[in-house]
Amino acid sequence: MSNNTSIYLVKLTEFFERLPGIGKKTAQKLAFSVLKMSKESAHDFANAIINAHEKVRYCSQCYNFTDKEICDICTDNSRDKSIICVIEDTRDLEAIEKTHEFTGLYHVLHGVISPLNGIGPDEIRIKELLTRINNINNTKIKEIIMATNPTVEGEATSMYISKLIRDPEIKITRLAYGVPVGATLEYADEVTLSRALLGRNEI
Amino acid sequence: MSNNTSIYLVKLTEFFERLPGIGKKTAQKLAFSVLKMSKESAHDFANAIINAHEKVRYCSQCYNFTDKEICDICTDNSRDKSIICVIEDTRDLEAIEKTHEFTGLYHVLHGVISPLNGIGPDEIRIKELLTRINNINNTKIKEIIMATNPTVEGEATSMYISKLIRDPEIKITRLAYGVPVGATLEYADEVTLSRALLGRNEI
Repeated sequence: MSNNTSIYLVKLTEFFERLPGIGKKTAQKLAFSVLKMSKESAHDFANAIINAHEKVRYCSQCYNFTDKEICDICTDNSRDKSIICVIEDTRDLEAIEKTHEFTGLYHVLHGVISPLNGIGPDEIRIKELLTRINNINNTKIKEIIMATNPTVEGEATSMYISKLIRDPEIKITRLAYGVPVGATLEYADEVTLSRALLGRNEI
Repeated sequence: MSNNTSIYLVKLTEFFERLPGIGKKTAQKLAFSVLKMSKESAHDFANAIINAHEKVRYCSQCYNFTDKEICDICTDNSRDKSIICVIEDTRDLEAIEKTHEFTGLYHVLHGVISPLNGIGPDEIRIKELLTRINNINNTKIKEIIMATNPTVEGEATSMYISKLIRDPEIKITRLAYGVPVGATLEYADEVTLSRALLGRNEI
């Protein structure tokens, strides 16, 4: 936005523009929508930013976002603490929780090893996972489920981590590959299809 | 976002989700990006929202956004105050200013007449335009340029307004229709092309 308008509007637009995936036009639209909010909403929005920034932190055990020392999933006694599902991102946690199929704990890596982007093993929470497996107080870990994304980097990260876990008593598994439910074979890519063939099950 | 994370993060995500054009996934991404900001940036962002909301208002003359009583364009003495360009939205003002072709003043309608969406002539700044034309203190208005969008609603709004301005001394014009510069005729729609033909100029 140029200087034909209020400097306060320009500043707000700039802030929106700095957010990921927000271009100039969208930033403008968002800034205008803030002007149209009620005074209360605008203040609540501003407070939400400050509160989230101040109070949200990583769970010291699984690195999910939480406002406590240890997150609700890690402290939930109804969950199976002997299974850890390793994921790239908190959003993957949400996706898996929605299935209601998994009752173990998580470990959020916050990224994948990606040498091209300058992300080595030390940039993501791998060390913390290993420490966690070794130092666990009461429960012995029985299984680690590798649930990184089925991309080259996700695969490589899974492989890297599974090689570091040398405990023969810990089973290391990964999500099944196959054709997505509801999809048509015609449109499945060859790699997915060949994985689906290799992993075929008896019915 | 579910309750597997911090309530503060959920709240912030909800605020982003209420903004226009922001879906659930994007809201989540934006909320995460706020967490990654520096403390200073997060506070500046929150303040930008409050400041913009408190200080930005409509110019009492042209209804552009400003933080003064009358905006910088309206008070700029180098501009031709006898020409008013009527536009739908402040963003159109930015677009026209970028051309550096127009040195008159603006009038922002903040919408178009759209009975289907329940927007009648009283919902947009038409009355204010008429009052402005009649009450102008020093300068006599010579020309009103209708620069609403070339849509059915934009056209209808232009027609409606031009009929209300009964002063024979005021010339009412509108933007030329035609093929966009740099476009290929092949891909121009028939209406645009026929307008371009009708409006052809001698070279």
